[in-house]
Amino acid sequence: MHAITIPEPGGPEALVWAEVPDPEPGPGEVVVDVRASAVNRADVLQRQGRYEPPPGAAPYPGLECSGVISAIGPEVTEWQVGQEVCALLSGGGYAERVAVPAGQLLPVPAGVDLADAAGLPEVACTVWSNVVQLARLGIGETLLVHGGGSGIGTFAIQLGRALGASVIATARSAKHAGLRELGANEVVDYGEEDFVARTKEATGGRGADVILDIMGGAYLARNVDALATGGRLVVIGLQGGRKGELNIATLMAKRATVAATTLRARPAAEKAAIVRGVREEVWPLLESGTIRPVVDRRLPLAEAAEAHRILESSDHLGKLLLIRA
Amino acid sequence: MHAITIPEPGGPEALVWAEVPDPEPGPGEVVVDVRASAVNRADVLQRQGRYEPPPGAAPYPGLECSGVISAIGPEVTEWQVGQEVCALLSGGGYAERVAVPAGQLLPVPAGVDLADAAGLPEVACTVWSNVVQLARLGIGETLLVHGGGSGIGTFAIQLGRALGASVIATARSAKHAGLRELGANEVVDYGEEDFVARTKEATGGRGADVILDIMGGAYLARNVDALATGGRLVVIGLQGGRKGELNIATLMAKRATVAATTLRARPAAEKAAIVRGVREEVWPLLESGTIRPVVDRRLPLAEAAEAHRILESSDHLGKLLLIRA
Repeated sequence: MHAITIPEPGGPEALVWAEVPDPEPGPGEVVVDVRASAVNRADVLQRQGRYEPPPGAAPYPGLECSGVISAIGPEVTEWQVGQEVCALLSGGGYAERVAVPAGQLLPVPAGVDLADAAGLPEVACTVWSNVVQLARLGIGETLLVHGGGSGIGTFAIQLGRALGASVIATARSAKHAGLRELGANEVVDYGEEDFVARTKEATGGRGADVILDIMGGAYLARNVDALATGGRLVVIGLQGGRKGELNIATLMAKRATVAATTLRARPAAEKAAIVRGVREEVWPLLESGTIRPVVDRRLPLAEAAEAHRILESSDHLGKLLLIRA
Repeated sequence: MHAITIPEPGGPEALVWAEVPDPEPGPGEVVVDVRASAVNRADVLQRQGRYEPPPGAAPYPGLECSGVISAIGPEVTEWQVGQEVCALLSGGGYAERVAVPAGQLLPVPAGVDLADAAGLPEVACTVWSNVVQLARLGIGETLLVHGGGSGIGTFAIQLGRALGASVIATARSAKHAGLRELGANEVVDYGEEDFVARTKEATGGRGADVILDIMGGAYLARNVDALATGGRLVVIGLQGGRKGELNIATLMAKRATVAATTLRARPAAEKAAIVRGVREEVWPLLESGTIRPVVDRRLPLAEAAEAHRILESSDHLGKLLLIRA
C-alpha cells in the first residue's frame, strides 16, 4: 500500500507519499481500508520530529480516519468486514490501510458522510474526555474555548452548547461569524481584546467554569484569572510554551483546578473507555444534527503537505480532510 | 462571655482574652457552649492580620470546637439544647460560646473524649474534602502527605491507610516514629532527603497518585515531578509561597491535575455538604477506632498565645487543644 512517510523531519515537504508494507491485524485489531483521514496539530509536531509516535503505533502520521473494515484479527467479535467505520488512531491514518484496536472503532453516525466522519474521532474523543469526563461541564455553566476555529474548537463550541452551557470562543475576527453560527455566545479576538475582561464581562464577573486551552504557558496566568470559583482549566496544547507561572493563591481562592492531558499517549484500555463514552453521549448528538462535522476543505491524501501548510497558517475553520484518491 | 480577641495584629502576644458580647443564634444556627477549641495555621495568619475572616464570621480566631448546645435558632430541627457536639466554624472558636450554622455540627463520635473532638472537624473536613471528594484517592493508590506531623497530616495518614492506600509522609526525623505508628508506610525527612526520589523509589518509579501539600510555590515543581500518571496534586497551604513555575508539559505527559482549595471561604451549603460526607464516611472510622484523634497537648483557652508559639515552632505532633477553664 501507500502511506505518507517522513524520511527526514522538516517542513511540509518532509511528507512523502511512498510504498510501504501493508498492515496486518493483530489480536483484537481490525484493518480499515481508509476512505479519508484528517489533519491534527500533533501531525505537524510529528513531521517536525518533535512528537514520537507511542510504542506500537504505525510510524506514519494520522490520528483518525474513516473507511471500510477490510480484515479482522483474532478475538474481534463486534465488527465485520465491509462495515463503514471511523477510528481513533495512535498513528498511521495518512495511509491506504491502517490496523487499529477494535475498541477505538466507531460506527459512522447516521446522516454523516463517510469522508466527513474521518474528522470526528480525534476531536470528539479529545473534547468529550476533557470537557465532560474530566472537567464535568454542567448545564448553565460557561465554557471558554481557545482556538475556537480549530477542529477541536468548532466541536467544543457545539458540544458545550448541546450540554446546556454558554460558550465563549477566542479566534481571529475573520472566523467570528462562523463560530457564532456554530453556537458561540461570545467571540473574542485574542489579538485585539483581553479575553479575561471579556469573559468576566460575559459572566457578570464570575468567570469561566471550564476553559479548554491550547496555548499552555503563554495563557496560564490569564486562564487562571479568567476562571470562576470552582473552575477547571484543562490544557490540551502547548502552542504558547511548556511552562508558566502559576499563582496558587489565586487558584486556592477560587478552589480551582488546572489539568493537562493528551489523548494519544493513553493506554488502549483508556482510549476504548473514551470511545465508548463518545459513542454513548456524543454520537446521538451527531445523528440528531445537534452537532455537525465542520470541514474546512478536502485535499487528496497524497497532498498532505498542502494540508499542513494550511493548518500552520491557521486560516482554516474546522477540519482539513485528506481524501484517498 | 470571654473570647480571644486580636486588638492589633502581631505575634502570639497579640492574642488577648477579653470580655465580648455573647453570640445570638440566627435562623438555622445554634449556639455551642465551648468545651474546647483547637489551633490551626489559619489562626496564626489571622492573628498576623493576613487572613481576614469571611463575611459574617465571628471576628475571633478558631475554626473548630466542641461543646454543648446552649441555644437553638429558628428553623433548626435536627439538634437540641444539651447535646454534645463538635463543629466546623468560620471563626470564633477561641471563645466561651459560638454561633454556628446547624449544617456544620457533628455529633461527638462514640468513644471520643468531648475535648479531643474539638480537634476533629477542621482536619476531617479538610482531608476528606480534598483527598476523597476532590482527588478521589483509591484503594491501592499512593498518597504523599506533606507536613505529616501536623493535625492535617496525622489525620491524612490515618484516613489514607483506612481507604486502602499506601501513605508516604514528610516530616522532621523526630516525628518519624509517631507517623509510622499512625500507619505511614514511608517517612521522609524533607530536610535531609529528596522526597521526589523517595516517592519514586517507594512506588517502583510510578510516583504518588495523590499529593496533599501545604507548601505551595516552593514545592510545586517537585510535587509535579513526584506525581504518577493520572496523579492529583492538591494544595491546601502556601507555607512555601504563593507562586511557582508549572511545567505544563510534564503535567500533560502525566495527564495530571493541580488543584488548590480552602475550606473556610466556602459557602455554608458547601460546608454542610462536606460535613454530611464526613459524618457518613469518616465518623464510622473514628467510632471503630480505625482513626483516632492525635492530640499533642492541651492548654487553657486563655493561654492561646502559648499554643500559637508551639504551632509556629512546628515541634508538635497532631493537634493543640485549647480547653475552657
